[in-house]
Amino acid sequence: MSNIHQKNVRLFSLSSNRSLALEIANYLGMKLDECDILRFADGEINLNLKNTVRGHHCFIVQSTSNPVNENYMELFIMIDALKRASAKTINVIMPYYGYARQDRKALSRQPISAKLMADLITVAGATRVLSMDLHAAQIQGFFNIPIDNLVALPVFTKYFKKQNIKDLVIVSPDHGGATRARNFAVNFDNAPLAIIDKRRTRPNVVESMTVIGDVKDKNVVIVDDLIDTAGTLVNAIRVLKEAGAKDIYMCATHAVLSGPAIERIQNSELKQLIVTNSIELPKEKRIDKIVQLSIAPMIANTILNILDNKAISDLFIYNPDEQ
Amino acid sequence: MSNIHQKNVRLFSLSSNRSLALEIANYLGMKLDECDILRFADGEINLNLKNTVRGHHCFIVQSTSNPVNENYMELFIMIDALKRASAKTINVIMPYYGYARQDRKALSRQPISAKLMADLITVAGATRVLSMDLHAAQIQGFFNIPIDNLVALPVFTKYFKKQNIKDLVIVSPDHGGATRARNFAVNFDNAPLAIIDKRRTRPNVVESMTVIGDVKDKNVVIVDDLIDTAGTLVNAIRVLKEAGAKDIYMCATHAVLSGPAIERIQNSELKQLIVTNSIELPKEKRIDKIVQLSIAPMIANTILNILDNKAISDLFIYNPDEQ
Amino acid sequence: MSNIHQKNVRLFSLSSNRSLALEIANYLGMKLDECDILRFADGEINLNLKNTVRGHHCFIVQSTSNPVNENYMELFIMIDALKRASAKTINVIMPYYGYARQDRKALSRQPISAKLMADLITVAGATRVLSMDLHAAQIQGFFNIPIDNLVALPVFTKYFKKQNIKDLVIVSPDHGGATRARNFAVNFDNAPLAIIDKRRTRPNVVESMTVIGDVKDKNVVIVDDLIDTAGTLVNAIRVLKEAGAKDIYMCATHAVLSGPAIERIQNSELKQLIVTNSIELPKEKRIDKIVQLSIAPMIANTILNILDNKAISDLFIYNPDEQ
Amino acid sequence: MSNIHQKNVRLFSLSSNRSLALEIANYLGMKLDECDILRFADGEINLNLKNTVRGHHCFIVQSTSNPVNENYMELFIMIDALKRASAKTINVIMPYYGYARQDRKALSRQPISAKLMADLITVAGATRVLSMDLHAAQIQGFFNIPIDNLVALPVFTKYFKKQNIKDLVIVSPDHGGATRARNFAVNFDNAPLAIIDKRRTRPNVVESMTVIGDVKDKNVVIVDDLIDTAGTLVNAIRVLKEAGAKDIYMCATHAVLSGPAIERIQNSELKQLIVTNSIELPKEKRIDKIVQLSIAPMIANTILNILDNKAISDLFIYNPDEQ
Amino acid sequence: MSNIHQKNVRLFSLSSNRSLALEIANYLGMKLDECDILRFADGEINLNLKNTVRGHHCFIVQSTSNPVNENYMELFIMIDALKRASAKTINVIMPYYGYARQDRKALSRQPISAKLMADLITVAGATRVLSMDLHAAQIQGFFNIPIDNLVALPVFTKYFKKQNIKDLVIVSPDHGGATRARNFAVNFDNAPLAIIDKRRTRPNVVESMTVIGDVKDKNVVIVDDLIDTAGTLVNAIRVLKEAGAKDIYMCATHAVLSGPAIERIQNSELKQLIVTNSIELPKEKRIDKIVQLSIAPMIANTILNILDNKAISDLFIYNPDEQ
Amino acid sequence: MSNIHQKNVRLFSLSSNRSLALEIANYLGMKLDECDILRFADGEINLNLKNTVRGHHCFIVQSTSNPVNENYMELFIMIDALKRASAKTINVIMPYYGYARQDRKALSRQPISAKLMADLITVAGATRVLSMDLHAAQIQGFFNIPIDNLVALPVFTKYFKKQNIKDLVIVSPDHGGATRARNFAVNFDNAPLAIIDKRRTRPNVVESMTVIGDVKDKNVVIVDDLIDTAGTLVNAIRVLKEAGAKDIYMCATHAVLSGPAIERIQNSELKQLIVTNSIELPKEKRIDKIVQLSIAPMIANTILNILDNKAISDLFIYNPDEQ
Repeated sequence: MSNIHQKNVRLFSLSSNRSLALEIANYLGMKLDECDILRFADGEINLNLKNTVRGHHCFIVQSTSNPVNENYMELFIMIDALKRASAKTINVIMPYYGYARQDRKALSRQPISAKLMADLITVAGATRVLSMDLHAAQIQGFFNIPIDNLVALPVFTKYFKKQNIKDLVIVSPDHGGATRARNFAVNFDNAPLAIIDKRRTRPNVVESMTVIGDVKDKNVVIVDDLIDTAGTLVNAIRVLKEAGAKDIYMCATHAVLSGPAIERIQNSELKQLIVTNSIELPKEKRIDKIVQLSIAPMIANTILNILDNKAISDLFIYNPDEQ
Repeated sequence: MSNIHQKNVRLFSLSSNRSLALEIANYLGMKLDECDILRFADGEINLNLKNTVRGHHCFIVQSTSNPVNENYMELFIMIDALKRASAKTINVIMPYYGYARQDRKALSRQPISAKLMADLITVAGATRVLSMDLHAAQIQGFFNIPIDNLVALPVFTKYFKKQNIKDLVIVSPDHGGATRARNFAVNFDNAPLAIIDKRRTRPNVVESMTVIGDVKDKNVVIVDDLIDTAGTLVNAIRVLKEAGAKDIYMCATHAVLSGPAIERIQNSELKQLIVTNSIELPKEKRIDKIVQLSIAPMIANTILNILDNKAISDLFIYNPDEQ
Repeated sequence: MSNIHQKNVRLFSLSSNRSLALEIANYLGMKLDECDILRFADGEINLNLKNTVRGHHCFIVQSTSNPVNENYMELFIMIDALKRASAKTINVIMPYYGYARQDRKALSRQPISAKLMADLITVAGATRVLSMDLHAAQIQGFFNIPIDNLVALPVFTKYFKKQNIKDLVIVSPDHGGATRARNFAVNFDNAPLAIIDKRRTRPNVVESMTVIGDVKDKNVVIVDDLIDTAGTLVNAIRVLKEAGAKDIYMCATHAVLSGPAIERIQNSELKQLIVTNSIELPKEKRIDKIVQLSIAPMIANTILNILDNKAISDLFIYNPDEQ
Repeated sequence: MSNIHQKNVRLFSLSSNRSLALEIANYLGMKLDECDILRFADGEINLNLKNTVRGHHCFIVQSTSNPVNENYMELFIMIDALKRASAKTINVIMPYYGYARQDRKALSRQPISAKLMADLITVAGATRVLSMDLHAAQIQGFFNIPIDNLVALPVFTKYFKKQNIKDLVIVSPDHGGATRARNFAVNFDNAPLAIIDKRRTRPNVVESMTVIGDVKDKNVVIVDDLIDTAGTLVNAIRVLKEAGAKDIYMCATHAVLSGPAIERIQNSELKQLIVTNSIELPKEKRIDKIVQLSIAPMIANTILNILDNKAISDLFIYNPDEQ
Repeated sequence: MSNIHQKNVRLFSLSSNRSLALEIANYLGMKLDECDILRFADGEINLNLKNTVRGHHCFIVQSTSNPVNENYMELFIMIDALKRASAKTINVIMPYYGYARQDRKALSRQPISAKLMADLITVAGATRVLSMDLHAAQIQGFFNIPIDNLVALPVFTKYFKKQNIKDLVIVSPDHGGATRARNFAVNFDNAPLAIIDKRRTRPNVVESMTVIGDVKDKNVVIVDDLIDTAGTLVNAIRVLKEAGAKDIYMCATHAVLSGPAIERIQNSELKQLIVTNSIELPKEKRIDKIVQLSIAPMIANTILNILDNKAISDLFIYNPDEQ
Repeated sequence: MSNIHQKNVRLFSLSSNRSLALEIANYLGMKLDECDILRFADGEINLNLKNTVRGHHCFIVQSTSNPVNENYMELFIMIDALKRASAKTINVIMPYYGYARQDRKALSRQPISAKLMADLITVAGATRVLSMDLHAAQIQGFFNIPIDNLVALPVFTKYFKKQNIKDLVIVSPDHGGATRARNFAVNFDNAPLAIIDKRRTRPNVVESMTVIGDVKDKNVVIVDDLIDTAGTLVNAIRVLKEAGAKDIYMCATHAVLSGPAIERIQNSELKQLIVTNSIELPKEKRIDKIVQLSIAPMIANTILNILDNKAISDLFIYNPDEQ
């Protein structure tokens, strides 16, 4: 790992997730490079790089979580500064990809903001993107620069194996996440699957929910890429309990946790919410029910493999022998 | 509809689906423009446009079905010819989008061929794409030129409403299609949903299938965007029958029907396969069990709305009063 | 002016300056097109266009003032939506150009954010930009799409001619604005010029200011493209008063007015601050000392000339006979 | 030559000319990298790279001969896979350039397919192209990435010098090839030149051929970049024999040999056809009259020089002292 | 022809061939648009457009003949001015294409200047190019914007038909021009062909010339796309005379006529040199032996057909009935 | 400094400033690479590179001074040749940036030639630009490739410190240069500033000049980025003398010196004109009053720092201890 110091590497943290960046730096045995990210009185971003980046491999850690627009603009401007300062490569480490859910036109005349972000990142000058558990795997195709889509599954698997929970059923909270839930289930002795079927019978009528599949007397793990307002979750828990579920866990890579989310989770019958640190949790969100697992080692190893021209696919596989 | 003749419009058919092109032309009250698509002795495409296209709105009908590579190359070369001949707009009508299933890196180092095709179509010079029931809606985001993703749902709905089948359950043949099945179900009094859960326990071990949801004594409609070798279908029918299903229908927009598909369908307990003419069916595939519905009127209306700068979203809604 | 209705034109307002957009619409005798610009719970922009824009000339009114990053992201996303919805042209009316002051590398390794914004606007899909009194005229060259740089000078000239102030001296508040002040002076019987010379003798030493030129017993108009925190202004006023100036006015196209600006102006010996409505003034900033002149007629006329393929340069000349 | 193993180089063969690829690999003392190029049931290309290519110099051997469209699509998809897998450079070794003859608009509204292929190769992500005896040297200008146009002339020269044929006349089979024939003649003691003048007096009238230049009692070498259906060749031989030619040889870099070519050659008075292995000859085409010379050493040396940043122009000169 | 005035058309002449531009304007019944093309004291081009071009179809007449670099730079700057002034289309009428002979790498490490010019024209903002008798037809493929390659053949044919010369042989002055000569011959009762074979036996040895084909007692027309220093011509005439030729004419579309060309022609046995006005002849070059034919009508008709969206291929065919 | 020879570096001089290139090469201890830059008889540039540049870092020295259009075209063609010959990086050293003054639309419908040149340099294939004292710093933003804007200020400062002139006032010859003059003044004990105010009262009326600021009994240094025809200078000197100035010096980075400049300077009361060798002075311009300082060491050090991935900002600071 020592040769990272011989390779002209710079690791920067923007504003959104400094604690993750520090953990990565620590794991790599290097320091975060100095870089001031201030605001002028009128709100414009004032960015200053302290050291030369000429001919350096530059890695920027920035999850584009809330405030998503501020975070994206910081990212674009940082990339521009590195490009004009003759960086050799500009690698964006963006574990959480803001606007990922706007990945298609659900209605006429909508933007496809997830693609737009890909275009803006590219035109600003990035040469590679690292993200994790993209809302849709197709977002990889929004880029023509290389993008690596890490998966948190091995991290979650390791955690759950230790909990040693019996009678598991894996639940997808909606139709779109069934594949994700299946991939999760495969790691747990092919645990059975259930899906929440959410319908809105007519406009302005409350939506109804039913469980497809059998959860009676089972311990349930709801699996999703992210948890936002927790509105759907609360209803799902209610329906699952009505269907006879025992303990209910939720596993979500990205802890968006907007608006009433924390309160809802606190008040719900959810036993535990397991998330990663792809998004930094402010103190007020760090409640007992939430377990946060670190993706820093996985990202650090990915950086090393990139610099050493080695494959990174091995990093995505759960290895029971590894501690 | 008459003003299409005042607008300098040309409609071309390439090799893959001439019958659909003719039907569209007929509906529009215009003729297909002459265009020779031959092959030289060494297999190279020899394309000649008979009439000027200077300043014309040009529409090309070409589904990129099997032989997919030949069909794509025809399309690229046709677009190039139109571009160099000063066409005003070049509109690709590609109801079936070949390589759509290669829309992400499922394994390391795979291509994203669906995105590549989007890039090749764009660099060749197309200015708009019309497709239908894209395998993943995110493929819209692979383009920066406008792309309209038509849906065959109203056509299927109209057909099934007439059949007046009772006790319907809508089935998704795999995890990825659950959303599609739900959208279908909404049109049929919120019919319940079931999903086929397909697993491969270990490598080189036969995959197992189970039905999630209740299909006992129900009439089943399996819904998918396409039907290819029908291998999964055959197994799904078996499992559904074991689970007590009555009549089983399948609805698939794109009739790929590769390899043993026809034989499998013929020999299966499937009651009926309903497809569109997005892919031309050769005579030997036109068996009694297959019903082919035409999308020509929908495409023709889309062309008219494009030329008249009108919204096309209304065309996608099932209207029970319309005949 | 009536034929604007026959030309498939849409006028949209984003969030930053709705009052200006309404005034322009009013002047043109048309309505603002409906368009929802909301926020999801996690801060992502949720944009919905109500009516078709196919083949339409679309104009978007959005000054990228504070909150500058939110406003730019709204703009990029709006442009993307219009592009994908097949708008014929996408015209950005951005009277105030956020990040315009970051138009060069003042120090090593700085971004050139003003150029970056030009690139992002272009890649999103805009086909034309309308701005006003750009901080540096060279920003025009940051674009390869047409950009029209309107000037507020005729509006200010008309206002001051009416005030009929004697013994005028035009003052540039810094070295970079001398040309702008000269252009202003030319319109007032070639009024003489003075320049504030601001120096910082050594780092961490207070900067000193001196007036170059004669302002004794003169009425002074300080001219600048924008007024931000008013810190420099306050010092300039002090120095000008010490140099014997009588009444002091300031003329600034863009009323940025960040942080303590309003309080400083209120407490200063400035007689009047004249600005335009390129940036919307919230109620708490509309103090008596500030006069706001409207640029809506100029922008409306520019739109008309663009649609009619007429020159717009005539609009920038002060015409004493016009009322 | 050993340091190729220290340079992270990968050599791939696609489907069209695996024997040439193997010969090159052998010459370089390295193995072809594993890469599955299969077809799905519906004809789509299914490509899987076995080993990491991160930061590697990748060379792809693929002549785009018949089936030209399949071969081009394989190439585009392979380039896309390498690009997304972070290859350092992507070098296309395409000794035969399919569609090279469609290099201009011979008639109105024709495509320029040779340019289109250059654009598609480039947008897919190639960084360099190696080709040989391009039909028109101007095709080099269709690319903005570096392209090296190798020439088979030294290979042919070496062969003919050994045959030691007297009284040579070099013949161009048409007007367009006169320069090529002259360049050939220069290597043989400035042998004289003759040209076949082919005319079609009126449409639907058989074309007539005459020999311009003197071939009486001479041994003739017809020189061309490729031989396709051999139709022109057969007529040329007849006319040359009528004009008194003795032995007739033909030299063509690319053995396209479509349709009735082999039969025609077999039945003609041609003494020998000398070609290279730029196109792989299937068994049924390897008749006695055809001599195939290998270009593998020349390509292998070119690869070495590229990796060593050395000029490759020396490789193109016939050196009589070299064995 | 009158509706050109209703179409917002502007016709500009740059410096190289104002007389041709005037003739075209005259033929179209319109005036050249005012545009100052001056030079600053330091040699920089100072260009000013007098009238608005917003939404106009703009045609620029500029042959890039000597001084070729000045003429190209004028062209780039003019295109830039039109692009920024919102021209609707920018059509470059460049009958003579400077640098066309540098269309491939003849030696290692040469530029392909003809392609570079195509890229520079395109990036400056041109939307279409009109040229004539391109040195190589493949130059069409250097562009991705439409390019029309007019041919002077009908103009020359018409002229020679009137001269009614007997016993014609068409001669190509080098190997590369054989196709061009053949196309010419076809129009004259399939007149026979001869080719000048030019060799340089060894470096630093005078090149030798021979005639391939029979010219004894024939009247000869040498055909080429351009005539530059006339060095080759003088030698060709000598060789042709030695071979028994009677009257010798030369036909060349582009009258480059560099250095000693005029003197050489004057002193040679050439009977007549027929050229077009694609390049403006200064007074001192207008000697009796040179006949200049106008291409203005052909270009004017091309402009009309472009504006009317009509094919232009008919314009290239010699029509004996037309006067 | 020796390791430049291990890095595959090539240094080329084009035609405009060969003496500067030689000085740089000398400083670096390397030779200029051989490269013929000739003209064909018709004025086209004929460029031949003698040695391979594959994988080399190439530096081109070319100031785009008069003849500016010839010099730019040489540069574009050289870049194209290097790109096609597989150079690793193409670095343009262009101390004087021709057309820099056309950096905005001063009047309607003007080109922005400075931006156009940036686009042409980029599309030709340059990967980096080095320039000096750009007319407007915003020109940096015209590029998306890295551009380093060196400053001559330390060179001038060092010179003037040695002259030890008392009672200095720094003068800007126009409004636009006030910032530049201020930056100069800061280096000389914060010398006071004065500005020449130039007005044209009405069209066709001689312009008037006044001095803003106090120059009485002071020694004056006029500071500008370039000196062209010296017309303004002559008038400025007259006005400054009338205002009581003692000795008058001028400092200008770029010695354009067009038309009557030398004569005017010779006849004026200017004591000394100090310029750099960014533009080569022909013999007839090297008069006694002109002092030329060399920027070769600064450029050579910049090249070294670029190759060593070190910051170059330190080179721009005047260091009194350095000799």
